[in-house]
Amino acid sequence: MHIATIGAAGMIGRKLSDRLVRDGALDGRAIGRLTLADVVPAESPAGFSGQADVWSGDFSDASEIQKLVDIRPDVIFHLAAIVSGEAEADFEKGYRINMDGMRHLLEAIRLAHLSDGYKPRLVFTSSLAVFGPPFPAIIPDEFHLTPATSYGTQKAICELLLADYSRKGFVDGVGIRLPTICVRPGKPNRAASGFFSGIIREPLNGVEAVLPVADTVRHWHASPRSAVGFLIHAAGLDTSRLGNDRSISMPGVSATVGDEIEALRKVAGERAVGLIRREPDEAIQRIVGGWAEQYDPRRALELGFRADASFEAIIRAHIEDEMGGKVAVD
Amino acid sequence: MHIATIGAAGMIGRKLSDRLVRDGALDGRAIGRLTLADVVPAESPAGFSGQADVWSGDFSDASEIQKLVDIRPDVIFHLAAIVSGEAEADFEKGYRINMDGMRHLLEAIRLAHLSDGYKPRLVFTSSLAVFGPPFPAIIPDEFHLTPATSYGTQKAICELLLADYSRKGFVDGVGIRLPTICVRPGKPNRAASGFFSGIIREPLNGVEAVLPVADTVRHWHASPRSAVGFLIHAAGLDTSRLGNDRSISMPGVSATVGDEIEALRKVAGERAVGLIRREPDEAIQRIVGGWAEQYDPRRALELGFRADASFEAIIRAHIEDEMGGKVAVD
Repeated sequence: MHIATIGAAGMIGRKLSDRLVRDGALDGRAIGRLTLADVVPAESPAGFSGQADVWSGDFSDASEIQKLVDIRPDVIFHLAAIVSGEAEADFEKGYRINMDGMRHLLEAIRLAHLSDGYKPRLVFTSSLAVFGPPFPAIIPDEFHLTPATSYGTQKAICELLLADYSRKGFVDGVGIRLPTICVRPGKPNRAASGFFSGIIREPLNGVEAVLPVADTVRHWHASPRSAVGFLIHAAGLDTSRLGNDRSISMPGVSATVGDEIEALRKVAGERAVGLIRREPDEAIQRIVGGWAEQYDPRRALELGFRADASFEAIIRAHIEDEMGGKVAVD
Repeated sequence: MHIATIGAAGMIGRKLSDRLVRDGALDGRAIGRLTLADVVPAESPAGFSGQADVWSGDFSDASEIQKLVDIRPDVIFHLAAIVSGEAEADFEKGYRINMDGMRHLLEAIRLAHLSDGYKPRLVFTSSLAVFGPPFPAIIPDEFHLTPATSYGTQKAICELLLADYSRKGFVDGVGIRLPTICVRPGKPNRAASGFFSGIIREPLNGVEAVLPVADTVRHWHASPRSAVGFLIHAAGLDTSRLGNDRSISMPGVSATVGDEIEALRKVAGERAVGLIRREPDEAIQRIVGGWAEQYDPRRALELGFRADASFEAIIRAHIEDEMGGKVAVD
């Protein structure tokens, strides 16, 4: 089996490659070839016995995408996107990368299908940013998409295209709407959502973290490990169960900031919690106040997608996967 | 005020022009200029004292659209589309006309906005085909869009683009999702929905009509007169009330085929009803069985959109507007 990932150099892309190599198979079929595409060269995963090719280029470009479709991967993971803040700041770039890129990919697949019946499984990472306020307290699977950002709009359009190309039989697509990834590894960043990860990651490393919002703020989280699990599950899913609705809101852990802090206390003790410094920031409070708090991911659960068991489990996964199982503050 | 219509030669486009000329004003401002664009030349409306220009060309083409934006209409009605059956049969043409056409229009407006602040009101005719089964018995405004056709997909994508370009302040957009238009004037056509109009229009003219489905089939109707009323109302709407959700399901008359027949009996008598010949057609039954039956158009009603009062009123509007007030079978 030949698997290609577009966006392979990103955090989730790298973890996906590692998991595929570790598993050695996908949906019961041995993985013989990996093609890792991104705008910067991805690292070739260690310990893979098959053929691994690293491709770098602008895969929102129709000619680059064509090359990828020419080698006929059985499964394509399409993870590439510019993030919300950048898509909002650069309108043209957002539509070019996040929307036209997907359309070029689907068109190349459609033409290949018409020529030789090619029909790959295409797993697309959408986002819960397809939803926009006003929200009900708990968002059902049948809630309409009224994105509040260009990024969310582009993801929603990709979902519609994916569904229509799948309905017509050109591709076998699944879109998964990821929760906010937590604990995101690496350095603190300036994203408005950064503190959800920061107040866990920094204290676990013995470093102070700033908390700009109230303890009562509720949000929807999934660990990087779960996110990779969603992708793998989507790649093996029986898509005949999806009907015309090819994109699915992923399950997550609903937790308040206070819940996060209590879980940190349980896992890493009082000293870690003491490293969280409350510094209210009205701008961030306003942004986060417009986000959804919780979903009812009934459909995903029925389809076998599984979230982390608790926020404590999210922290323990981070310690295992990123810190070699050891916490610095202990 | 300068008003442009794209798709001015179609049935709704023609009726819209007639109404604009009759009113002489839109949203309290005198209409001084009409630009009527379509792939075939529209008829110039009779009795208009201002400047009326008829433009023919392919207005899904970026350069044709640019010419229209260059003359800076205050209001643009974008009604142009290829219909559902054609979009399903010709995938590429459907995306080109129904989706790329809208994007070219929005892009031309955005660039004009960036150059001189131009920001027209853009009224877009979407369709209830943005919804797809499985449906609840009555579809609420917050129901998700999972179109079952390429046409519905293209309309849903246009809605998302319209909302994002409006949110960013490039255009002032309103999308209206029209019910099935009934009684559609003119000759019988081969559309699966044709009989909803046919069983009224033909008997009123003393001609036999075929009914391929059961009397219990329920559907959502609006007269051509109401559809034009929706467009006019949308052009004058206070769009600050719309938030990020710029497209609105229009109110309609929920009626079964049996209700239609009873209304016909009341308006035109037993002889008219006797001209309906029941000839069940499984193919049509299957298609129509996948359609939504009824909506809860709360938002549209709150925003002041008004449907026909009853199915009887729909028939009487047809007799007034298309038959000079006289029924042939009497």
